[in-house]
Amino acid sequence: MQLTADWVVGFVDGEGCFHVGIVEHSDMRTGYQVLPEFTVVQHERDIQVLYALKRFFGFGVVRKDQADRYAYRVRKLEHLERLCDFFLKHPLKTRKNVDFRKFRRVVLMMKEGRHRTREGLAEIIDLVSSMNTGDRPRLEAIKAQLVAG
Amino acid sequence: MQLTADWVVGFVDGEGCFHVGIVEHSDMRTGYQVLPEFTVVQHERDIQVLYALKRFFGFGVVRKDQADRYAYRVRKLEHLERLCDFFLKHPLKTRKNVDFRKFRRVVLMMKEGRHRTREGLAEIIDLVSSMNTGDRPRLEAIKAQLVAG
Repeated sequence: MQLTADWVVGFVDGEGCFHVGIVEHSDMRTGYQVLPEFTVVQHERDIQVLYALKRFFGFGVVRKDQADRYAYRVRKLEHLERLCDFFLKHPLKTRKNVDFRKFRRVVLMMKEGRHRTREGLAEIIDLVSSMNTGDRPRLEAIKAQLVAG
Repeated sequence: MQLTADWVVGFVDGEGCFHVGIVEHSDMRTGYQVLPEFTVVQHERDIQVLYALKRFFGFGVVRKDQADRYAYRVRKLEHLERLCDFFLKHPLKTRKNVDFRKFRRVVLMMKEGRHRTREGLAEIIDLVSSMNTGDRPRLEAIKAQLVAG
């Protein structure tokens, strides 16, 4: 299955998810780890489309998700940078593009190591809270703790 | 917002729905009406994408769906024929293409008026039952009644 850039943009406008996890981690100076992740989840009958996405981008993995669903997933920072370059060149047409731009800012901040500082992490949390996929109440509690600490 | 054919195919692979309703209707000779319908539903924040689809195809309507969601919808047979021509020329890449091909067969049968005969309707019901969006138990009951009648 050969994919074109436009098809990928259309499919990701429908099915793609840009998510940034903020996870407690005692080894980190801030106490939290920042985990940006791009996923496309499909029913197992469409696993071929997920492998086609992996071939198209040249990175990422296809893994079992929940029940009869599989996910194409990109987590490595260098791969996320290349993914962001692609969606900067080929913009999403839905409002998912707003989330993508915030996601990209997080990826760029991480490249500069800013997620390892209290100030950088607070800025990332603000970005993630405003994303469609962000768990606002939980993130605001983490931020309040960061600022207080 | 300008859409390309490939983007539309990718987006419909994710978000499009080919559905055939089989509805009781006393005016029909068979007692049932066949209602094929193509829809793309989005949150109201992405209503612009639905209008862009309408412009792209040159037919269909954008209407409020449930709660904060809107739908781009094509129901007229002549427009469904043109829609089918498009997806025949630009094939869907997911398994939704299997449903599309059954949907297209229903549209072509309707063009020939075959849904107005008991035999044609039984054939349509078989097709629709095997579609991902088909309500199998209900359709099988209707078919049993048709065959018995």
